[in-house]
Amino acid sequence: MYQEYLEFAKEIANKAKEIMLKYFNEDNKSSYKEDKTIVTIADKEINDYLIKRVKNIYPEHSVDGEEEQFGNSKMVWVCDPIDGTAMYARGIPVSVFSLALVNDGEPILGVVMDPFSDSLYSAIIGEGAYLNGEEIHVSNIDLDDKRSVAHFDMAPWAEYNIYDAIKELGKKTYFVGIGSVIRASMCVATGDFNLVIFPLIAHKNVDIAAVKVIVEEAGGKVTDLFGDEQRYDRDINGAIVSNGVVHEEAINAIKKSLINLK
Amino acid sequence: MYQEYLEFAKEIANKAKEIMLKYFNEDNKSSYKEDKTIVTIADKEINDYLIKRVKNIYPEHSVDGEEEQFGNSKMVWVCDPIDGTAMYARGIPVSVFSLALVNDGEPILGVVMDPFSDSLYSAIIGEGAYLNGEEIHVSNIDLDDKRSVAHFDMAPWAEYNIYDAIKELGKKTYFVGIGSVIRASMCVATGDFNLVIFPLIAHKNVDIAAVKVIVEEAGGKVTDLFGDEQRYDRDINGAIVSNGVVHEEAINAIKKSLINLK
Repeated sequence: MYQEYLEFAKEIANKAKEIMLKYFNEDNKSSYKEDKTIVTIADKEINDYLIKRVKNIYPEHSVDGEEEQFGNSKMVWVCDPIDGTAMYARGIPVSVFSLALVNDGEPILGVVMDPFSDSLYSAIIGEGAYLNGEEIHVSNIDLDDKRSVAHFDMAPWAEYNIYDAIKELGKKTYFVGIGSVIRASMCVATGDFNLVIFPLIAHKNVDIAAVKVIVEEAGGKVTDLFGDEQRYDRDINGAIVSNGVVHEEAINAIKKSLINLK
Repeated sequence: MYQEYLEFAKEIANKAKEIMLKYFNEDNKSSYKEDKTIVTIADKEINDYLIKRVKNIYPEHSVDGEEEQFGNSKMVWVCDPIDGTAMYARGIPVSVFSLALVNDGEPILGVVMDPFSDSLYSAIIGEGAYLNGEEIHVSNIDLDDKRSVAHFDMAPWAEYNIYDAIKELGKKTYFVGIGSVIRASMCVATGDFNLVIFPLIAHKNVDIAAVKVIVEEAGGKVTDLFGDEQRYDRDINGAIVSNGVVHEEAINAIKKSLINLK
């Protein structure tokens, strides 16, 4: 049954790829400045397609999209149509589509599509994580390894300010913020990055639901900002996505930095 | 004469595009973990090509490449073969090629090639900045505008630690760190970002020489980390790249944060 759901998720991901590429190429580099029209249209087109397909094939399921929701089933399709919209609108090809099937709060399968390299990341719980059909694994790289790359998302609208933790961990590791937490998390799943810090809450389950199952099936760890498990059918309490090796060190730095703010 | 130099620079940029795409596509997502071979090969191939061509066409000029240098002329071709190598090696398409012609310390023309979108940014001093032949301009967006996107580069090997400035400015603007200061600076030139903070020194003139002339010809401002002009044929004292509007505010935050560290 999970395999059938996964095929369904992949079909949606392929449609999302088409839509993302269509509007990305149409972007004339100025339209976003007026009203973000292109992002809004692409986002909505993907969301609408998902809702239409779920209603058609799995009418007993719910949908939790970034833009629109429906239903109140225990089985929810949790979707971020375009993660990294600010980069998408600016012609920087790092945005991705993400879709998870969440059963009673737990993501049981997920897909992430990077349309720019035609890369489909996928996982079913208990069955490993894959990139275009090839199994992927996290690294075992420490933060003080010279190959260490960590990612953080920071915005004035983030509910937690974690700059002091970044400052502390940044003494060891190179930090980037590529503009898409999901694209960065896929780098954790493939072993290219070792840590992602995500300090946001409101409706951010759509960002982490697919990440949770893909990164953990690749051998990594995904928790809230303080190391605890959480549900993915409602607001989350931030997220730490890691190769497992650096998880505790990141959480300790975050706890310390938040105490310092008091 | 400058126009002839620019045509020469564009020819090198097109060759660099070829080389970057060839090795990027060959990357099997694991080789970098062993010895960064692919980046090293592509970097060196571009650098060697530049040196060969300069020796052939402008034997009286010098070359200051990231990997290799030659000559001690007042006229220097300053080149970063691949800016954003960590991202390049990890399959994230944000790296660029950069080349400037520097006359007695001052960049008089520059080209930047984004091979992934086939975008060639170029400028001759006094003659405006162009993206694939179309004139480009910085934005007039303030840091507290909701469309504001700023970029910073942070690494344990950076000579200045500017996290406190990021923390301060981050109360207003969305911050990213896309992994290539030159790609980010081209976003300033097109009005997509409004600020880039670059806290590095050692041989980092190769990162900023072309940026200096392109961003300023697009109407922006490029100085060292403290607002002063500097030469681009030797180490630089960091850089602030902005749309002009936010320049002073960024510099004030940096000065304050470095004082705080004492």
